[in-house]
Amino acid sequence: MAIINVKPDGYNYLFNPANAPVAYVDPGDDVFIWTDDAAESRIKTKENTPSNTLAQVKFLNPQTGPIYVNGAEPGDTLAVTIKEIEFTRDFAFSSFMANFGAMAAVPRTCLQKPNDEHTFIWEKVDEKGDYWYEPELDIAIPKRPFLGTFAVAPEGEAISSLTPGPFGGNMDCPDIAPGNTVYLPVYNPGGLFYTGDGHAAQGDGELCGFALETTTKTHLVFNVIKGQTIYNPRIENEEKIMCVGSARPMEDACRMAYFELINWIHDDYGFTLDEAYQICAQVGRCYVANVVDTLWSMCASVEKKYLKRLGGKPKAGEVKL
Amino acid sequence: MAIINVKPDGYNYLFNPANAPVAYVDPGDDVFIWTDDAAESRIKTKENTPSNTLAQVKFLNPQTGPIYVNGAEPGDTLAVTIKEIEFTRDFAFSSFMANFGAMAAVPRTCLQKPNDEHTFIWEKVDEKGDYWYEPELDIAIPKRPFLGTFAVAPEGEAISSLTPGPFGGNMDCPDIAPGNTVYLPVYNPGGLFYTGDGHAAQGDGELCGFALETTTKTHLVFNVIKGQTIYNPRIENEEKIMCVGSARPMEDACRMAYFELINWIHDDYGFTLDEAYQICAQVGRCYVANVVDTLWSMCASVEKKYLKRLGGKPKAGEVKL
Amino acid sequence: MAIINVKPDGYNYLFNPANAPVAYVDPGDDVFIWTDDAAESRIKTKENTPSNTLAQVKFLNPQTGPIYVNGAEPGDTLAVTIKEIEFTRDFAFSSFMANFGAMAAVPRTCLQKPNDEHTFIWEKVDEKGDYWYEPELDIAIPKRPFLGTFAVAPEGEAISSLTPGPFGGNMDCPDIAPGNTVYLPVYNPGGLFYTGDGHAAQGDGELCGFALETTTKTHLVFNVIKGQTIYNPRIENEEKIMCVGSARPMEDACRMAYFELINWIHDDYGFTLDEAYQICAQVGRCYVANVVDTLWSMCASVEKKYLKRLGGKPKAGEVKL
Amino acid sequence: MAIINVKPDGYNYLFNPANAPVAYVDPGDDVFIWTDDAAESRIKTKENTPSNTLAQVKFLNPQTGPIYVNGAEPGDTLAVTIKEIEFTRDFAFSSFMANFGAMAAVPRTCLQKPNDEHTFIWEKVDEKGDYWYEPELDIAIPKRPFLGTFAVAPEGEAISSLTPGPFGGNMDCPDIAPGNTVYLPVYNPGGLFYTGDGHAAQGDGELCGFALETTTKTHLVFNVIKGQTIYNPRIENEEKIMCVGSARPMEDACRMAYFELINWIHDDYGFTLDEAYQICAQVGRCYVANVVDTLWSMCASVEKKYLKRLGGKPKAGEVKL
Repeated sequence: MAIINVKPDGYNYLFNPANAPVAYVDPGDDVFIWTDDAAESRIKTKENTPSNTLAQVKFLNPQTGPIYVNGAEPGDTLAVTIKEIEFTRDFAFSSFMANFGAMAAVPRTCLQKPNDEHTFIWEKVDEKGDYWYEPELDIAIPKRPFLGTFAVAPEGEAISSLTPGPFGGNMDCPDIAPGNTVYLPVYNPGGLFYTGDGHAAQGDGELCGFALETTTKTHLVFNVIKGQTIYNPRIENEEKIMCVGSARPMEDACRMAYFELINWIHDDYGFTLDEAYQICAQVGRCYVANVVDTLWSMCASVEKKYLKRLGGKPKAGEVKL
Repeated sequence: MAIINVKPDGYNYLFNPANAPVAYVDPGDDVFIWTDDAAESRIKTKENTPSNTLAQVKFLNPQTGPIYVNGAEPGDTLAVTIKEIEFTRDFAFSSFMANFGAMAAVPRTCLQKPNDEHTFIWEKVDEKGDYWYEPELDIAIPKRPFLGTFAVAPEGEAISSLTPGPFGGNMDCPDIAPGNTVYLPVYNPGGLFYTGDGHAAQGDGELCGFALETTTKTHLVFNVIKGQTIYNPRIENEEKIMCVGSARPMEDACRMAYFELINWIHDDYGFTLDEAYQICAQVGRCYVANVVDTLWSMCASVEKKYLKRLGGKPKAGEVKL
Repeated sequence: MAIINVKPDGYNYLFNPANAPVAYVDPGDDVFIWTDDAAESRIKTKENTPSNTLAQVKFLNPQTGPIYVNGAEPGDTLAVTIKEIEFTRDFAFSSFMANFGAMAAVPRTCLQKPNDEHTFIWEKVDEKGDYWYEPELDIAIPKRPFLGTFAVAPEGEAISSLTPGPFGGNMDCPDIAPGNTVYLPVYNPGGLFYTGDGHAAQGDGELCGFALETTTKTHLVFNVIKGQTIYNPRIENEEKIMCVGSARPMEDACRMAYFELINWIHDDYGFTLDEAYQICAQVGRCYVANVVDTLWSMCASVEKKYLKRLGGKPKAGEVKL
Repeated sequence: MAIINVKPDGYNYLFNPANAPVAYVDPGDDVFIWTDDAAESRIKTKENTPSNTLAQVKFLNPQTGPIYVNGAEPGDTLAVTIKEIEFTRDFAFSSFMANFGAMAAVPRTCLQKPNDEHTFIWEKVDEKGDYWYEPELDIAIPKRPFLGTFAVAPEGEAISSLTPGPFGGNMDCPDIAPGNTVYLPVYNPGGLFYTGDGHAAQGDGELCGFALETTTKTHLVFNVIKGQTIYNPRIENEEKIMCVGSARPMEDACRMAYFELINWIHDDYGFTLDEAYQICAQVGRCYVANVVDTLWSMCASVEKKYLKRLGGKPKAGEVKL
């Protein structure tokens, strides 16, 4: 197993099967990836608003990649285990941008006056960034580190890094986090993995459109599951299996996430589709990952402890869940 | 303080300001309410499907109420604290019904063939119903007791008990649970409170349209907050404040829940609207309560520990959240 | 056949099965109905904005009715033929209202600043109101007279007159117009018909939320189709059959309108469902009736000339459509 | 002015700025373009269903292009006048496909059983295809010739030819028709124009997902409007100006179409935004172009005769509209 450092000279702004790989890795390698923030480090102070820093910028959300995973072929599944996410600078920004965010109307649908822009600068409380503080709010919050974008190149299309979809992409899903393995469908030889948009923390939905945007060094390990085809991103850890659906309107994202989860339970845990549907109805969980991107993303999950047949009705006191 | 037992002779199927109260209570009284299940106890075995038990039934989701709370006037807020929910029978049902549920299309929009119906019967593992077991699935799950419908009579309208809205109603929100206080806007003298649709457990979204449907005895205490007007249901416990939005499409339910939450933080915790928006963006949580009723419901929340100004940046090691 | 004049002393603001009828009519009677405008004649000049005239008003959209049609029973269809709509005053208003209209966000979902209010006063060019002129715009437009609300009392519920649905209601559909017959499902004895919200003209969607709002005298003739049950409003004239679907999101309104239309073609014109679906796919028409009310409404139609089997392939030159 | 024939050897399935132009044309040239049908002529008989002809096919909707228009630069607008659309074969197909079409649920959201597939073959009644006949239906319909896809290459992205958007694309809008000029924003040098998906006729919405799909020879003339930037496709003829919005949910497509139209009226006809909004509210028209593609498309329009100030209120009898 090798150690591979992926420190890019430049970035890509498309999930594009035509881009040349920036690294080739083997399954099992320890891969360390540096990512810039979604505004490519242009917003550093409260005076930096989206208008005055991003107006001339053509593309946002710089991606590190693509990384070619040796052995991955179309029809396989790429399994990406997130070992660690480190924050490589002392602050994170979050901004309100005109005509953007969940509390703004969808762009080009509305004649209301946009609200004012506003930038917040969150500072690390401790060196590792376990807690973050924002002076204007005068509050501190714990980290919830994850990568907002996590993608393979789509089949044929070259899609903006602002977009989520079956290929992963800009899901802004807080469960793309250390300790979890993310499964993505492989459409192209090598999978062609991209990531970026590191977040030190985020609420469900990424409500204003910007989380605690910061730069990261991330430790990943790739594996390839040969011949297994999935249709939407899946996430797993010791306790849970999770699926992400991205669509508009949001009910379709919710349904897609649960549809993939029902199929997963059916395929891997020995339940019929009807049974898997009933299990999700009673112990499924589903939260909003993003309500601000080009498609909304929802994450549905179920705990593995519910996915084992008991072999008969337990007696009172026997069940511990 | 009195003890009031509300054991109805019959039920209402509308949240209707014109219905005669079934009880009058004072703020602070210990009110015990018996509720029937959403199918009015017609589904008792696996052989009872929605088609063969509910086809001739005109109205579903029987409600206990209205309860008149002395002193509540339009413009006030009704605060309802849920002390306990007991399950008053040994089983709960959940069914798949043709053309109903999140994995079915919206009724009268689709020419696909409906899926088969299917009834699951969940049995108590222990006397109190801390755990429930379903023989066909051969799994057990813990209780998550709550009331699917929790409402005041709307302003003017008489609305089906299948519908959620600003008045509460059929939100199917698992946080309408013991230990929590629910706030509802008062539109009519006495508030005119209704409840029903007791659930022993439910996944986020009530995916197939039926949770663990059972009968309950619920202990509530009502209070009236004079002169405080809210616009959507709010929920509170020691740790969190939560709001429910009900709308279609689901993104509007999400936005309404967060909009109410942002206003709550602004009104009661001394933050500007901008600050409240930023706080929700970074530490808000938002899950699907229902994706099967006439409107979808979302529940957004924030933990209270984030709603206190610290009086300056803490030192490393000082923050414990 | 009698002549019945329905000049109300007051109005209803709910489609409510509990309201006492204001008139009883027989099928075939010539019924003349006076309607007030949606703001109950409070907006008369450019200085009258929604804020300064409607802020204290609890209920909008006054309805004339209910009219009890003798012989109509639940499960029947009420057929209402619109003979004529006369405008009973010289002007119509249309206003922009804060947080209302298609170019505003859905209320309570958005922190953008609302746009300014603005009232337009349209004046009759000729006595009958065939053309209307607005001085600020300095343009004239032809009449497109119709009734914005056209309803029967729902089954059980009492619903705001601002809402459309299977019972008709506030569809704001310009084909509820002279020369057309509107079919509504009967849920209550007598049908309990309501109408109001007269429009001298309106664009598709009623974009700003107010059409050319004016007062009317309308000539209707009611008939009852015994034992025919429909599920959404239907409209017919010599050339076309049309159906209205009301829902959110708008694609569901579109699908409901076409679903009802496909079933109509199947039931009455001798085509299979598959054939009716194919016909709608190739010669159906579908426009936005409203994108501003509590549910959006869409109107789908097909011309009757396409609904006759030809008895074999015609020769070139034989078809005239 | 030259005559340019664009008869492709092969097709593209992406609107892709990286594709090599298949032709270079000057503004004003008479350009004749041959297009294949959306299934690349694989469906020719009733026995050819989507499953048995398209299952192994990776990409649908073949596009002729890109055509490089000399002089077009990013920020300009490409004006494409459609002179004529000829049908180059004797039949058109339309099919029902499993899990596709407006009467099917959105893919991967639903556990209902899909409906049966079904292919209809429409035959020309006359040589030019003014009328078409389908033997199973035994009806004839008139032509409504147009190009389902009409696009420029997007900015950066390479997008599936199944998708509509600001760049045009798979709008399935029946007003992309002979006699009309379509305006598209230019994102790349030469504009890089694509077209395909010729339809002999289609209902509003392309309900089952396939119109009368046939092969065409189309006569186009390109022009470039220097320095004019538009944000969504616009269409114009002597009588009307029209705009297309593509989005989900459908209300956003409707709002985008009207938003672009309001801005057009404001920019080119001397009305304020408020005035343009009021005009659209009263005389705008808006129909569904597609409710089956990856985004829904709506077409909003207004007649030019309403866009001229009259210079004072006309007298009765003076207005003729």
